[in-house]
Amino acid sequence: MAKENPIGVFDSGIGGLSVLKQFIRFLPYEKYIYLGDTARVPYGNKSEETVKEYSRECADFLLSRDVKLVVVACNTASSVALETVKEMSDVPVIGMIVPAAAAAIRGTLNGNIGVIGTRATINSNAYEKAILNLADSAQIKVYSQSCPLFVPIVEEGWIRHPATRLIAEEYLATLREKLVDTIVLGCTHYPLLSQLLTEMMPGISLIDSGEHAAVNAIRLLGERGELGEEREEYIMTPDVEFFVTDVPSTFFEVAQRFLGFTVDKPHKISLGKKS
Amino acid sequence: MAKENPIGVFDSGIGGLSVLKQFIRFLPYEKYIYLGDTARVPYGNKSEETVKEYSRECADFLLSRDVKLVVVACNTASSVALETVKEMSDVPVIGMIVPAAAAAIRGTLNGNIGVIGTRATINSNAYEKAILNLADSAQIKVYSQSCPLFVPIVEEGWIRHPATRLIAEEYLATLREKLVDTIVLGCTHYPLLSQLLTEMMPGISLIDSGEHAAVNAIRLLGERGELGEEREEYIMTPDVEFFVTDVPSTFFEVAQRFLGFTVDKPHKISLGKKS
Repeated sequence: MAKENPIGVFDSGIGGLSVLKQFIRFLPYEKYIYLGDTARVPYGNKSEETVKEYSRECADFLLSRDVKLVVVACNTASSVALETVKEMSDVPVIGMIVPAAAAAIRGTLNGNIGVIGTRATINSNAYEKAILNLADSAQIKVYSQSCPLFVPIVEEGWIRHPATRLIAEEYLATLREKLVDTIVLGCTHYPLLSQLLTEMMPGISLIDSGEHAAVNAIRLLGERGELGEEREEYIMTPDVEFFVTDVPSTFFEVAQRFLGFTVDKPHKISLGKKS
Repeated sequence: MAKENPIGVFDSGIGGLSVLKQFIRFLPYEKYIYLGDTARVPYGNKSEETVKEYSRECADFLLSRDVKLVVVACNTASSVALETVKEMSDVPVIGMIVPAAAAAIRGTLNGNIGVIGTRATINSNAYEKAILNLADSAQIKVYSQSCPLFVPIVEEGWIRHPATRLIAEEYLATLREKLVDTIVLGCTHYPLLSQLLTEMMPGISLIDSGEHAAVNAIRLLGERGELGEEREEYIMTPDVEFFVTDVPSTFFEVAQRFLGFTVDKPHKISLGKKS
């Protein structure tokens, strides 16, 4: 695969834009294709079977556009459908789980790691398995908590609302009790709640899965000799082509909140077929 | 169409079960087919175009099973896609909007009507248009408020959580200021919040769109001579066949909360096609 081929990033919707943001930060000299399956969002409350089917369709679209790397920028899809995507792909595939699991192990001092995510991500136990696979289970304990209301709250923009703190208090109660010193933000929406979570648990180390996936991609593309050539113009204006399956009324506002810059003219496509 | 044909009810997911519950209460001697598009839920944050496409597919499925009446048991779909469904249907179609709009006009004493719903329902202005179409606009004022967090909160079962009250306080602030005495629950999830809303606004008259749609159906089927024959055995055990496009992990628990009885063995089907 050539250096100039794009990196393909897909998510159930706009959450993956927080991952894309980290990729642009760490790998600025790349072309990107972003696909958000906004017509079927969210994946986090759907069954494993359905998430696999949707992920296959998203990956299929990116592969048809000759990407050199597929980034599964959705924790739910990474948790239940990473193998599915890897099996169909002739280029490397990076998910959210393993890089963040490794970062959490490096980050913890007392060995108590918390993981928060959607119900599908938490039910899959993907983070716990990945952490215990990489670390000595005698020294590491993992405590998982699903936080289904965080996604709608972030999309609503109620980042500093008193209700958000009340909800977070409830979700974090067990993790506090267990004295976790590190929490994996196992959903691409959660980095937008970082400041609140840090205020509520001072000293906590938060692991942003997008950031660690991006760092992972530098190493992986570097080793394959496939990193994009340095091009100064990309530093000011990232080269991203956006595809979505639906453009709801709040799309542009929410996308800007996640990405930090405006999503310009997303292309609308259809995924899925009668089966 | 024969009396013994079923009534078809569809919704984006499980919310329409609160409508089905009202239909079973008012029309117990009917067979029902319920379709929840759980693989693509929710509709409330998607575009008009997408909601029309999905509604067409749901109605198509029900019509293929010879229903004598199509109930669009989703306020979002009723707001933006009712005409679409009517155009393709050779049997009557009942939506959520007009029956509830009429009930709100009958219910208000001071002429100030509030409407709450998803963002898509509120943006469509469907309730406001229906109310002002039926009533003298010099005597009736309509105040609309989207409440996007109510659906995830109800699905989470946080009906009595302090955070829910805080969120509701914010959503209801303008309606309070405008001294509304009647609020249309313009989303099938909201009847589960009735008690909280009544506590917060004592004396408020809440309009349950499912209830009024069911009453409307009695009249409509009665006039056509298509009401089901009285059958005592249906009083104890309603005759409902359930179809869904996905069975997520929380399906049965949430369905029971909406319906009041257990959903037994839903059939999984696929909707949608490549376009």
